[in-house]
Amino acid sequence: MSVTSAQGFVASGVSAGIRPSGKPDVAVVRSVSAAVGAALWTKNRVQAAPVTVSKRHLAAAQPQAVLINAGVANAATGPQGEADAVTSAEALAATLGLATEEIIVLSTGVIGVRLPVDKVLAGSRAAADSLSPEGGGAAASAILTTDSGPKVAAVTTGGFTVGGMAKGAGMIHPRLATMLVVLTTDYPLAAGEPEVFLRPAVEATFNRISVDGDCSTNDAVILLANGASGARRDDEMFAVALHEVCADLSRQVVADGEGATVVLEIGVTGAATEPEAEAIARRIATSPLVKTAAFGHDPNWGRVLAAAGSAPYGDEFARLDTASLTVSFNGTAVFVNDAPTDAEPDVSGAVCRIDLDLGLGAGAAGYLASDLTYDYVRINAEYTT
Amino acid sequence: MSVTSAQGFVASGVSAGIRPSGKPDVAVVRSVSAAVGAALWTKNRVQAAPVTVSKRHLAAAQPQAVLINAGVANAATGPQGEADAVTSAEALAATLGLATEEIIVLSTGVIGVRLPVDKVLAGSRAAADSLSPEGGGAAASAILTTDSGPKVAAVTTGGFTVGGMAKGAGMIHPRLATMLVVLTTDYPLAAGEPEVFLRPAVEATFNRISVDGDCSTNDAVILLANGASGARRDDEMFAVALHEVCADLSRQVVADGEGATVVLEIGVTGAATEPEAEAIARRIATSPLVKTAAFGHDPNWGRVLAAAGSAPYGDEFARLDTASLTVSFNGTAVFVNDAPTDAEPDVSGAVCRIDLDLGLGAGAAGYLASDLTYDYVRINAEYTT
Repeated sequence: MSVTSAQGFVASGVSAGIRPSGKPDVAVVRSVSAAVGAALWTKNRVQAAPVTVSKRHLAAAQPQAVLINAGVANAATGPQGEADAVTSAEALAATLGLATEEIIVLSTGVIGVRLPVDKVLAGSRAAADSLSPEGGGAAASAILTTDSGPKVAAVTTGGFTVGGMAKGAGMIHPRLATMLVVLTTDYPLAAGEPEVFLRPAVEATFNRISVDGDCSTNDAVILLANGASGARRDDEMFAVALHEVCADLSRQVVADGEGATVVLEIGVTGAATEPEAEAIARRIATSPLVKTAAFGHDPNWGRVLAAAGSAPYGDEFARLDTASLTVSFNGTAVFVNDAPTDAEPDVSGAVCRIDLDLGLGAGAAGYLASDLTYDYVRINAEYTT
Repeated sequence: MSVTSAQGFVASGVSAGIRPSGKPDVAVVRSVSAAVGAALWTKNRVQAAPVTVSKRHLAAAQPQAVLINAGVANAATGPQGEADAVTSAEALAATLGLATEEIIVLSTGVIGVRLPVDKVLAGSRAAADSLSPEGGGAAASAILTTDSGPKVAAVTTGGFTVGGMAKGAGMIHPRLATMLVVLTTDYPLAAGEPEVFLRPAVEATFNRISVDGDCSTNDAVILLANGASGARRDDEMFAVALHEVCADLSRQVVADGEGATVVLEIGVTGAATEPEAEAIARRIATSPLVKTAAFGHDPNWGRVLAAAGSAPYGDEFARLDTASLTVSFNGTAVFVNDAPTDAEPDVSGAVCRIDLDLGLGAGAAGYLASDLTYDYVRINAEYTT
């Protein structure tokens, strides 16, 4: 269950001394046969150096390997940061016998600190030396920062496998994934095709989760496909498998949100349009008042209503009418026909489902979010520049 | 320094038993001579019953008195809620010898609970009986919920006075004021004029503050003007005085943000356009990562950059280029020319100023925000439906 679950992929993770804790911090993932690939990147106006460099590489070649370091994000580091990212890619390419443009580089960690290039190069060499089909777990551990543990997933179906790993605990908010994700598959795809499958899968999963509403400078979702399974094409089945792996990983990211104790599943139906449903779901998912109420296991539908009624959409708020809407917590309606039902839903569990049916149209959207807790504050007030 | 600082205004505050704590919870403010007035309301799609009823009243008559209750917001209460708000207004009108439409009703507190009308009527009678020119302080105390104390301000200049009181500690975010504010002045204005002065003052003050980014169902800013000073018209001087009172009250609201320990003063200059400057300032002001860093007294400009780079503006993010921007904390530049300066600004105080000069154009905007703390979580995880 990892980036090496699919045939023909090897990976590794090593400790290179970048993270002060001494924990593993350099990972490499490689396809052993010729792969095609695609990436989706953060839309933040501040883009980390590895993002800029990897975009350039992807425009020039099909990606064959991914080099990831944790501890330092190599963001807001200017031309020096780009040079450092290029140096890292060049070194791994030389070691693996690939072209520099065939390497994707990703970084996660503190913003505004120069990449410790010597440590990354030494780590990259050590990681290249230990690449193995069993290395998926080690790679998944070497890309973490404030995460409490590795996040891996895989689906095997129709003679092929889709596997993946993710990193992300804070700064998790769409546009896009606001985390690092590497997906691999031995399903046969031609150049240009990975993006066609990746975009809708990400839109419905990683772009519908929120831990703190913040959007990182380094976020990326990478898909490598090498066709090593020799499976017959069944694109619908592949799309479903890819979606499942993305959904599994995105849920793991929310559940491991910094300080999270509750996963909020937010479902909006009956909105005037789908974009308005998404705007309302996102607004609820990012409301500090809703998220603290979730932490307190309080079915506070008043805050849900207040958030839903102030969902930015174009120049105003998404349409909503209390006369036609229904709010439910874990399946129990708490607000119907413009009035509270006085029902008392059970929200004692670690998952809290909030459904809004707006009664206006056919627009629907879902969102996953974590609660806002003391530990979120502790982690982020103490984690330093 | 209150709503009774201006001549010809009386006010009072009493305990009517609506708040379980037994604290004062009903306030009345009245002009003793004929006043003109205006109000600006929340843009939330969910509007509390008193908002709906008061809008109707303002369309029919000039407001002469304001009745405010704390403890119950009378929001999401449907037709019954509207009837309860009307009943409250009718009763106070009868007691004061005014038309029902001359009464503005405001409520603040828990959403989705029916207004305890008997208590409000009894409180309103008691408040009407104790109206006095010295009652401004009592009124300011009777409109609070999670606030740590009353918020009052006044400016006397040019022979006239502008005074006011505010309530608000959580759910503070623009569109509009996300709180209750009553402003009074003895400056001479004609019907229709109060709104002309109120709108720009509110836009530059109450619409540029954020505690938690949430936007309430009940927010309102009311201005009553009775001309009792007999002062000569100097509209510029009046506009400045009104702005000062609004700025003073809005800063008090941020400083008393739920759990707040630090006031963030965010200044954005050099943006491509003014709306983009505002979008970026707002994004920084609402970023949980920036706000937890402020709590930790950490000049974490990396998070400021990441937030600034992801400020929603139209369908994308506001323009920003790290090559041309400067970030300063309390006047010390920490990021210039696409690189950290390694300067160590002093951010140990209770006020933290963050300036971004984007170097792109002439757009500028400011914002005030509170930090995100353990106490914010405690207050909102425990405050219940």
